Amino acid sequence: MDFLIHLAVQEDVAHGDVTTEAVVDAEAMGSAVVFGREPFVLSGTRAFRQVFQVVDPTVEIEAIYQDGDDVPANEDVFRIRGRLRSLLTAERTALNFVQRLSGIATLTRRMTRAISTSRARLLDTRKTTPLWRTLEKAAVRHGGGGNHRFGLSDGILIKDNHIQAAGGIRKALERARSRAVHTLRVEIEVENLDQLDEALDAGADIIMLDNFSIEMLKAAVERAGDRCVLEASGGVDLGTVRQIAETGVHLISCGALTHSSRSIDISMEFCRQQDTGSGRVWK
Amino acid sequence: MDFLIHLAVQEDVAHGDVTTEAVVDAEAMGSAVVFGREPFVLSGTRAFRQVFQVVDPTVEIEAIYQDGDDVPANEDVFRIRGRLRSLLTAERTALNFVQRLSGIATLTRRMTRAISTSRARLLDTRKTTPLWRTLEKAAVRHGGGGNHRFGLSDGILIKDNHIQAAGGIRKALERARSRAVHTLRVEIEVENLDQLDEALDAGADIIMLDNFSIEMLKAAVERAGDRCVLEASGGVDLGTVRQIAETGVHLISCGALTHSSRSIDISMEFCRQQDTGSGRVWK
Amino acid sequence: MDFLIHLAVQEDVAHGDVTTEAVVDAEAMGSAVVFGREPFVLSGTRAFRQVFQVVDPTVEIEAIYQDGDDVPANEDVFRIRGRLRSLLTAERTALNFVQRLSGIATLTRRMTRAISTSRARLLDTRKTTPLWRTLEKAAVRHGGGGNHRFGLSDGILIKDNHIQAAGGIRKALERARSRAVHTLRVEIEVENLDQLDEALDAGADIIMLDNFSIEMLKAAVERAGDRCVLEASGGVDLGTVRQIAETGVHLISCGALTHSSRSIDISMEFCRQQDTGSGRVWK
Amino acid sequence: MDFLIHLAVQEDVAHGDVTTEAVVDAEAMGSAVVFGREPFVLSGTRAFRQVFQVVDPTVEIEAIYQDGDDVPANEDVFRIRGRLRSLLTAERTALNFVQRLSGIATLTRRMTRAISTSRARLLDTRKTTPLWRTLEKAAVRHGGGGNHRFGLSDGILIKDNHIQAAGGIRKALERARSRAVHTLRVEIEVENLDQLDEALDAGADIIMLDNFSIEMLKAAVERAGDRCVLEASGGVDLGTVRQIAETGVHLISCGALTHSSRSIDISMEFCRQQDTGSGRVWK
Amino acid sequence: MDFLIHLAVQEDVAHGDVTTEAVVDAEAMGSAVVFGREPFVLSGTRAFRQVFQVVDPTVEIEAIYQDGDDVPANEDVFRIRGRLRSLLTAERTALNFVQRLSGIATLTRRMTRAISTSRARLLDTRKTTPLWRTLEKAAVRHGGGGNHRFGLSDGILIKDNHIQAAGGIRKALERARSRAVHTLRVEIEVENLDQLDEALDAGADIIMLDNFSIEMLKAAVERAGDRCVLEASGGVDLGTVRQIAETGVHLISCGALTHSSRSIDISMEFCRQQDTGSGRVWK
Amino acid sequence: MDFLIHLAVQEDVAHGDVTTEAVVDAEAMGSAVVFGREPFVLSGTRAFRQVFQVVDPTVEIEAIYQDGDDVPANEDVFRIRGRLRSLLTAERTALNFVQRLSGIATLTRRMTRAISTSRARLLDTRKTTPLWRTLEKAAVRHGGGGNHRFGLSDGILIKDNHIQAAGGIRKALERARSRAVHTLRVEIEVENLDQLDEALDAGADIIMLDNFSIEMLKAAVERAGDRCVLEASGGVDLGTVRQIAETGVHLISCGALTHSSRSIDISMEFCRQQDTGSGRVWK
Repeated sequence: MDFLIHLAVQEDVAHGDVTTEAVVDAEAMGSAVVFGREPFVLSGTRAFRQVFQVVDPTVEIEAIYQDGDDVPANEDVFRIRGRLRSLLTAERTALNFVQRLSGIATLTRRMTRAISTSRARLLDTRKTTPLWRTLEKAAVRHGGGGNHRFGLSDGILIKDNHIQAAGGIRKALERARSRAVHTLRVEIEVENLDQLDEALDAGADIIMLDNFSIEMLKAAVERAGDRCVLEASGGVDLGTVRQIAETGVHLISCGALTHSSRSIDISMEFCRQQDTGSGRVWK
Repeated sequence: MDFLIHLAVQEDVAHGDVTTEAVVDAEAMGSAVVFGREPFVLSGTRAFRQVFQVVDPTVEIEAIYQDGDDVPANEDVFRIRGRLRSLLTAERTALNFVQRLSGIATLTRRMTRAISTSRARLLDTRKTTPLWRTLEKAAVRHGGGGNHRFGLSDGILIKDNHIQAAGGIRKALERARSRAVHTLRVEIEVENLDQLDEALDAGADIIMLDNFSIEMLKAAVERAGDRCVLEASGGVDLGTVRQIAETGVHLISCGALTHSSRSIDISMEFCRQQDTGSGRVWK
Repeated sequence: MDFLIHLAVQEDVAHGDVTTEAVVDAEAMGSAVVFGREPFVLSGTRAFRQVFQVVDPTVEIEAIYQDGDDVPANEDVFRIRGRLRSLLTAERTALNFVQRLSGIATLTRRMTRAISTSRARLLDTRKTTPLWRTLEKAAVRHGGGGNHRFGLSDGILIKDNHIQAAGGIRKALERARSRAVHTLRVEIEVENLDQLDEALDAGADIIMLDNFSIEMLKAAVERAGDRCVLEASGGVDLGTVRQIAETGVHLISCGALTHSSRSIDISMEFCRQQDTGSGRVWK
Repeated sequence: MDFLIHLAVQEDVAHGDVTTEAVVDAEAMGSAVVFGREPFVLSGTRAFRQVFQVVDPTVEIEAIYQDGDDVPANEDVFRIRGRLRSLLTAERTALNFVQRLSGIATLTRRMTRAISTSRARLLDTRKTTPLWRTLEKAAVRHGGGGNHRFGLSDGILIKDNHIQAAGGIRKALERARSRAVHTLRVEIEVENLDQLDEALDAGADIIMLDNFSIEMLKAAVERAGDRCVLEASGGVDLGTVRQIAETGVHLISCGALTHSSRSIDISMEFCRQQDTGSGRVWK
Repeated sequence: MDFLIHLAVQEDVAHGDVTTEAVVDAEAMGSAVVFGREPFVLSGTRAFRQVFQVVDPTVEIEAIYQDGDDVPANEDVFRIRGRLRSLLTAERTALNFVQRLSGIATLTRRMTRAISTSRARLLDTRKTTPLWRTLEKAAVRHGGGGNHRFGLSDGILIKDNHIQAAGGIRKALERARSRAVHTLRVEIEVENLDQLDEALDAGADIIMLDNFSIEMLKAAVERAGDRCVLEASGGVDLGTVRQIAETGVHLISCGALTHSSRSIDISMEFCRQQDTGSGRVWK
Repeated sequence: MDFLIHLAVQEDVAHGDVTTEAVVDAEAMGSAVVFGREPFVLSGTRAFRQVFQVVDPTVEIEAIYQDGDDVPANEDVFRIRGRLRSLLTAERTALNFVQRLSGIATLTRRMTRAISTSRARLLDTRKTTPLWRTLEKAAVRHGGGGNHRFGLSDGILIKDNHIQAAGGIRKALERARSRAVHTLRVEIEVENLDQLDEALDAGADIIMLDNFSIEMLKAAVERAGDRCVLEASGGVDLGTVRQIAETGVHLISCGALTHSSRSIDISMEFCRQQDTGSGRVWK
């Protein structure tokens, strides 16, 4: 991970911050605060710190909030002190991490709140930004969601094409159980209630109900009883998640958490000299 | 870049696709088509191909559309043939690239169309996803936008904090001009019309008008004449971009293109056996 | 993986094969055969090929046997043709992979044969050589064994220290079930029959019986019935594995497969000129 | 090297230790001791420390013994304190290094003791585990053995195939001497006493006697006198090494030191609360 | 950069410094001074420190001079204390950086002094040693020179072949202006005065006068007036640079600064025991 | 090595060749020739090819000369065909390798010719450009020189400070012989004839005569007879090398070969359209 932070800094800084090197004195010290222009759930603190660490290990960062905290608008999240040049050079890359990850955590928080009276748990998917799965899955947890499998190695999820290739639900489940590592539960995706019956019959541990209508979801919960874990998937957003949760499914997975969340508008503002009174200062 | 594609595949595949290895025969061949469930502008073709290349170099991919093309809903974008296991293993990572990059290209296209009757050019910013700047800036170009500087090394952009550190607009511009590489133009950010006058006076090559109202933008265009390039920045979205363009500024930069675009809903669907007639088949 | 093959070649070749470069003409071509001096189960074919690929992509390798095959003593496993210099330079590193991985596969085969009449399955552990887990776990499969979890991310195994930290078996199981990804089964290690009862009671999916005597294993199988999967661990070797299997446990895990197997004595012998009759020649 | 330690940790930990994260509190502190269940020669201390350093730099490790020390059974080798989570996560990878490297050092010690009354020195070979040559060659030194050349670049060893390619022993030696770097001695492998005479005659610096019987070794020592260094190779194990050493050869090289040593059974045991009295505690 | 320092150390040290390990005690401490055997301009301090940091972070280095300083012959530049083994092992690689980079700084200083009475500024080119561009361009700055563009991404320089491919100077300039990022100035290379006129006419920001004679340079300065920046290139060395500067061009670029400078003769000398009086000691 | 070529291309190209992309059509094809503007000895062919391979694997390169050939001025060395954009983008980095490495080969050739009537062999040193030792040592061989040890691991060279640390020449030699790998010869550096006697007496294999005058070198050759290999070092250049060689030493090592050679002036010239007659065309 640290290696990727280095690459991310390298991507922006390349062979130097030509503006800052030309305009700002090498010895000038400065301080700055980071805050959102809207309320949000914080995520990305570690990456934020690491970017400064890579640019200049002497920069000091005080974190007022922690990952997972609800942060009001305009409240200081981080207070930073160090060489002014380093602050200016690291600013954009550090914010790029926090604004995007906090966007994910904030959307997740809104959706988990919407289903808090149900027994359903909100999960992410593998529809993450390539290279940032660890960070994005952490952001989902910071928002109160849970994680589905991390990748292809740590969970068995038999999809439509697997079923077709294996020659049916029963055969696919048998193969998965006999060949895969015994520590993994077997999950299978079904597209209608007949397939659900077949999967229940064949002893699936978890059944993903793909694009089921609310009515179908209710029927599925009834048929399955406690024989397996049911996961609803498809068409999940802020408008629909509550109704889905109230059908009684155990899990609701939502790709939009990571692939379509909006970045939070987070800024870094430099503090003026103490004696000037004007401008933002540390509280 | 290719190195990052390897890491992205590694992130998902880790020590193997346990479902596919358990359920799908090693020798089975398959074919699949990729299409959007909504109209979009394509971007990410090269990364899409590279993911398959990393997973299995024998997979064949036919591209029906090219980066930058407008693709109607439900039209095949790629047709793919190869080992069924390889197709299943590469699917998610390959789509994760295309759905996100096409989201950026599509939003860019919508905004550039909105300003096509003005002389203004739409630009991206450095508010990109860390590690994907090259890909995301290409996606902006595929959508018809232009690129602002790539990073801190290849453009001089004097911001508020630089001005403050240097002791004023004039001093900052002088320092930048005398110390920086002669191949770079000097751009400065101003927050009001007085600063604009000062910057014009000091001979800035490009002036960024930060969070100017429409009225202020108009006044700025009038004052500057052809003495420098004017760039509007802040509060740019689909609702405002046209009005901003009509003030006469030369450039409009918009961070949301890369930090808050929504992924396109793009799917990969496997083709059934030729003899069955049912299911999607290659045209 | 390919990256590690490069490093492995680099480790031996560094800045060149000084003997071969001094003594062997650059243009000389040669052929060689690889064979074991004892019967064995082959593993490591892919790494063997990759080493030659890194040293010289023009070398041709014909594989007579495949990973998992029983190979008699003195039978050709690979036949190789190419620049004599390349063959000499790649020889040692390529053999170092095959001799070690085949040692693991061969030991696994002997142990799986010893338990073939029972229902028990032989598994590896995480006691692998750092950096070679993927290769070593594949070698275990080539020998007929199964794989336990790959690493810490893709399986839940609650050990003594976890139990102690959580405040008991029941609490540990509850925590694991509620916090971990739903796709993972929960396995717990117990040290005596009382703990077994507690774990059964608390609904463990899999129970590892650590260093149980044969009598205790039999008792455990009786108590557990079909309520969970039982795994025997500790003190497993060629002398004990059969007796353990006959107690009726489902799984037997054995660290020695990967941490203490002996390398197979595998050699590469160069073929003499066709016209001299003497010396080994391709069949 | 440090880079490989990172990869080794990554191999086991991947995207997290799901058991420990679910079951153990983030703030819990712990301590543990590492000890062997049999007497052994320690090797791998540096790698052991580095694994913990990578997982959590705040973990403190006290080393009671040093590499090369004879450690009695059940004696503490390391005492460790830190976050309980970090201890549990690093345990397996850290032990995998030490148990394997100590196995090599221990076997080497036993063999060097067997020949301690002769003038012969025991050497390793290039039959090491790919990627771990530096560590394994150090383990041989910790056990009291010496190192043969590190790889193909830092020693000239003319083998059978080189001789054949060059057109005879004399020609091969001449080529090696005239073309290779002057800082390297020239070693040649011979298969019988006639070849020995030819090599002596041609002025070899070192002669490796490959698979010579005890009688042939004695004859070789007699013929060579002090004209060159003699190295016995092939069929060297604990049962034969003493007899070989007593023939008067200078060097004995043994591949089994690194390719077939057995891992030492080394455990990490967590210390219980001070007030409970039961369980292992720090002395 | 730090990564390359690691590789550079690895290149020399590989699997150890066999001489030092054999001959020098592990605990011996030592001190040394570094000085030039001729006067020079220092560059490479950071790389020098980093090499020691990689070899042994406990070595202490006191820098008497800073990059860019004129250092008299035989004056201490660095004073170093630490493990004698570490000093001996790091010596060569550390000096290889400083002697080469100081060679560049020294040549640059001589040339910039030669033109100090003119308005011309001396620049480097892209004719640098692959992988060391950042270091070499810094060395040029330490010597008092300026930097031309860093690489192909951060400056537009239209050369002869570009002009030909575009179909003429005017077309090439138009394409560059309309398609390239707006933050970059457009520079074009011309080979005679007619081309100069055409480029001036087409509004080039910077014009490189390639291999112009002194007479042609004078004519070019006259024709261009202040309409653009003029850069002389080709045939620039210590013998010609002054005459070129006196023609009135703004910039003079010189490839020899980085591709053909001579290394400075810099040595590291170990200090003898304090009580012996003889030998070099710290002042 | 290939990895470093990638980094070298990355260093220059970064996020694209902005001039070429703006000015040259993507489909335009071109051809070019590479030639020196002075006679030289070629080195760097492989790196030259690799740079183009990295930029665009479809570019075709015909090599008219091989590494080690004497190339007359203005003779084509390489002929290149491919996408014009690729040729322009790769040009500078590819030439940077060849011009520098050919500079080393050319200087080496001149010096080896100067000593061709003596028995002395010219060697390089470890004073190479960090990261390019393999390439530079190959360039020395292309020029007809020999290589001294590659680095600290593959040769024993006891220098002044080692002698001092060990407590004298005899002790240092004894330690080196008893502790170092037996495949390495022992070389020691001496500063006067008394030390030479001591080293001869103690049985050094190779003795480096550091900064000996011609008279001292003659005396050393006389005293040593054939008892060891003698290497002259220090003050070696084109003016002195012949005299040094004629003293009868076996080896002459010269740091300037790699640290102070001048780059050869090598150009790449694009071929004009076939129908125009004017301009350079392929022969």
